[in-house]
Amino acid sequence: MKYLHAMIRVHDLEATGRFLTEGLGLVETRRMDSPQGRFTLVYFGAPANPEAEIELTYNWRPEDGSPAEDYGSARNFGHLAFEVDDIHATCAHLQSLGITINRPPRDGRMAFVRTPDLISIELLQKGAALPPQEPWLSMANTGSW
Amino acid sequence: MKYLHAMIRVHDLEATGRFLTEGLGLVETRRMDSPQGRFTLVYFGAPANPEAEIELTYNWRPEDGSPAEDYGSARNFGHLAFEVDDIHATCAHLQSLGITINRPPRDGRMAFVRTPDLISIELLQKGAALPPQEPWLSMANTGSW
Repeated sequence: MKYLHAMIRVHDLEATGRFLTEGLGLVETRRMDSPQGRFTLVYFGAPANPEAEIELTYNWRPEDGSPAEDYGSARNFGHLAFEVDDIHATCAHLQSLGITINRPPRDGRMAFVRTPDLISIELLQKGAALPPQEPWLSMANTGSW
Repeated sequence: MKYLHAMIRVHDLEATGRFLTEGLGLVETRRMDSPQGRFTLVYFGAPANPEAEIELTYNWRPEDGSPAEDYGSARNFGHLAFEVDDIHATCAHLQSLGITINRPPRDGRMAFVRTPDLISIELLQKGAALPPQEPWLSMANTGSW
């Protein structure tokens, strides 16, 4: 028994791909198009343990022009968590890409952001918490995660 | 950057714990109670790569007796996938525990089940697909996953 991946459905493959690669520093490992099934799968791994993958499923737009499915968002699935070397630097970088830091790392230890399709991502500082610092220390939460 | 875990919220810690351990063969790695926050976290790992964990969050029942939160279920999160040594044996074992095989392994390669809180679990046969066999070969899908 081996853990393989977490699959999330996305409406914009490139937007979530950028979030995971440019934003979080994951690496795209493989990609598969199924013209018959009208979907594309793209896999990403974190550099430290790329075998535990994130699988994106992109269902191609309906051929009849009907609207894309609304995937919604619920609370039974919580989040995907990653360990980062410097949570302050990671959050500053994500913010520079226009990504909202829903739960800023006020404690130098934990932050939450969300993918374009509202999957919560937990970022945890590797090892001991960093000394809390601005602008995070006095930053309020934004929305939910 | 390292992948740590996928967190799911559960209404019955023991029921999901049994699903993951007795059902799927994961191992409980650690457990943490927070009386102050009124929640319990329990972590599970697959024997082949226990560092990629499943984190269960159990929020204790409200002290005022109000009903537990309905966590719902949505399609933006897809599933968690595990590789198994013998998908027929795994599905037979899960079925013997009363777990519905939502998508039977008709192809000897892939099956889907759901946790008590409706998180989809994909099971994938390690290596080449097994020769398809009954009762799976002629078993219809049940519900969604």
